[in-house]
Amino acid sequence: MPRVTEEHRERRRRQILDAARSCFARKGFHETSLQDIFKESGLSAGAVYRYFRSKDELIGAIAARSQPLVAALLEEILGEEELPPLDEIVARFAHGVIERMGPSGVVRIAPQAWALAMYNPTIHVAIGGLLGDVRLWWTRVAERLRDEGRLPPDCDPKAVAIVLTSIIPGLILQRLLLGEDADVETTRAGLHALLAVDQRPVEGSAL
Amino acid sequence: MPRVTEEHRERRRRQILDAARSCFARKGFHETSLQDIFKESGLSAGAVYRYFRSKDELIGAIAARSQPLVAALLEEILGEEELPPLDEIVARFAHGVIERMGPSGVVRIAPQAWALAMYNPTIHVAIGGLLGDVRLWWTRVAERLRDEGRLPPDCDPKAVAIVLTSIIPGLILQRLLLGEDADVETTRAGLHALLAVDQRPVEGSAL
Repeated sequence: MPRVTEEHRERRRRQILDAARSCFARKGFHETSLQDIFKESGLSAGAVYRYFRSKDELIGAIAARSQPLVAALLEEILGEEELPPLDEIVARFAHGVIERMGPSGVVRIAPQAWALAMYNPTIHVAIGGLLGDVRLWWTRVAERLRDEGRLPPDCDPKAVAIVLTSIIPGLILQRLLLGEDADVETTRAGLHALLAVDQRPVEGSAL
Repeated sequence: MPRVTEEHRERRRRQILDAARSCFARKGFHETSLQDIFKESGLSAGAVYRYFRSKDELIGAIAARSQPLVAALLEEILGEEELPPLDEIVARFAHGVIERMGPSGVVRIAPQAWALAMYNPTIHVAIGGLLGDVRLWWTRVAERLRDEGRLPPDCDPKAVAIVLTSIIPGLILQRLLLGEDADVETTRAGLHALLAVDQRPVEGSAL
């Protein structure tokens, strides 16, 4: 029955990708061998090669698999009749990301994927595509905020999106390198304070 | 004369680190061999080994060398009697960073350094130290802004710093993966719009 075969194939693919993700998160991409992945997945070399021919293909597929997860998270927020406050939008996005930063979580391998994307065209397409989608989504958020009168009418939504797109990668990096005090609630509080910042010079100032 | 010797040593160190940085930026850390670095520097293996014993040591030293550059840039801003508008502070920092993103620029290897820091304790200390210093500096900026009445009096400067620290790594990533429209002026414009965002619900709203 072709349907069962397709399901079986999909389950196998997932099994291999989960094993690869765990190995990459634990040992790093370059230190992980294909043997490590065979062992972690409990499958033979032949069974793995039927689906993926290299570590590069594996990391590309892991990134591609993240795309619908990220899209679902973002579309849910954009589907709401009135957009939540911006600090809440960022916090919900950050929450979804940080949940996937556990010992074998997909976000733990993000910096490796970024580094690989610089020199490997296939990975560049996968990771650049994901980041580009996120930035397009933030552009749509900025357009909505502008249309709702919550951003200046003459603002450039793409410029706003460039700033907002930076927050999550920067948070991932701080969390991995400096520890868990870079959490969702702290980020939200920081953003909340900044969005209220008064940029006008103090009245009566000598300068 | 020991002074000349010290100067000579320092010049040699710089010559090797410049060569390593160019190779890492061009080929990636893992694809660069020590042979590539000998060739790029014009020095013999023995001459290089007198200063550095591995690629790990080289990337640690490159990161360490960035520290005073970043510190000087940041201290100059913090030394001003009245802090500039926040979008200008970020723009000045971003400008210093983007200037170092050319074909063999040190910032081009940042994502590789982040990835290596996850699994290599020496590099973790160097890169985590740099990121931690930047975050401490942003904490001091946030304290100043709060004391000048430009951030809410009850805000948490560290939380603000976590958000501001994210912007530059996120910008580096976008620029390397999505292209040069993630530039200083666009970032500044986006931030300017966000800092003026009105987070209060629209008056008379049905919700």
